[in-house]
Amino acid sequence: MDKFSLAPAFAATSHPVADMTLCAARLQDDARWPWIVLIPRRMGARELEHLSPANRAQLMDEIVLAGAAVRAIGAALGRPIDKLNVGQLGNITPQLHVHVIGRRPDDAAWPGPVWGVGEAAPYAPDALAAAISAADAPLRQLKSAS
Amino acid sequence: MDKFSLAPAFAATSHPVADMTLCAARLQDDARWPWIVLIPRRMGARELEHLSPANRAQLMDEIVLAGAAVRAIGAALGRPIDKLNVGQLGNITPQLHVHVIGRRPDDAAWPGPVWGVGEAAPYAPDALAAAISAADAPLRQLKSAS
Repeated sequence: MDKFSLAPAFAATSHPVADMTLCAARLQDDARWPWIVLIPRRMGARELEHLSPANRAQLMDEIVLAGAAVRAIGAALGRPIDKLNVGQLGNITPQLHVHVIGRRPDDAAWPGPVWGVGEAAPYAPDALAAAISAADAPLRQLKSAS
Repeated sequence: MDKFSLAPAFAATSHPVADMTLCAARLQDDARWPWIVLIPRRMGARELEHLSPANRAQLMDEIVLAGAAVRAIGAALGRPIDKLNVGQLGNITPQLHVHVIGRRPDDAAWPGPVWGVGEAAPYAPDALAAAISAADAPLRQLKSAS
C-alpha cells in the first residue's frame, strides 16, 4: 500500500485536529458551520466501496465521533447544534473524505446543503483555537486502537 | 420499540424497491439521477448516533449495496455513473435516511450537490420499471440475515 498523503485541497481549506484510528480529522476553515472533514488514510480510495468492510465500519464509528466533536464546537462557540449533516461527495476533490457538519435553522444555508454556498468565512484566531480545543477530546476517543 | 412507519414525505417522492436487513430502500422519483433512499426501520432515529453500533455497521453495508444499485440503474438507462454521492441530512424530513446518488459530469447539478436543485423529473413508466428492475438484485444481496 502506498504511503498516505493528503490531497492539497484539504491543506488549503482546513486545519488538522486529530489522527483517528482510520481517518485524518480536520476542521474546515469556515466559521459559518462547525465542520469536520474525515479523510481515511487509504491511498487510492475514492468511494466507500474501496474500503474494506472493517475499515468501513471503523469509518462509521469515526463519523459518529466527528458528530460529537461538531456538537462540542457549536457549544463552545455559543451556537448549539440542532442537526448533523453527513456527506461523502468528492465531485471536486476525489480523495475519499466525509463531511460532518453542524446545522441550525438560523444558519446561512438552512434547510439546504452547505456545499458550494457562498464564500468560506475563515475563523478568527481565538475562535479557531476554541473550535480545535473543543473538537479534540471527542475525536480522540478511539485513538488507542490502530 | 414502536412499530416502524415511513414518514409521508418518502411515499410522496419515491417508490419502494426492496426491504433490506435494516433499511427500506426506495427509488427517488427523479429521473435526473439514479438515486436510492435508505430508511432504517428504527422509529425515532434522526441521527446516525441513534442507531446501535451493529445497526450502524449494517447501514454502512447497505449504503455500499445501494451504490451498486445506483450504478446498475445508470447502466440500465444508458448513463453509466462516474461518482457516487452519499448524504445523510434530514433538515427537512427528520426521520433518519441516507441518500445514495449516481453522478456524472454532464448531470444537472455537477459538481455541486443535488439536493434542492431545480424540480424533480418523474420517471416515465418504462424507465421507472427498468430502474426498479436494475436496482432489485444489488439491494437484495443481504436480505437473508435479519
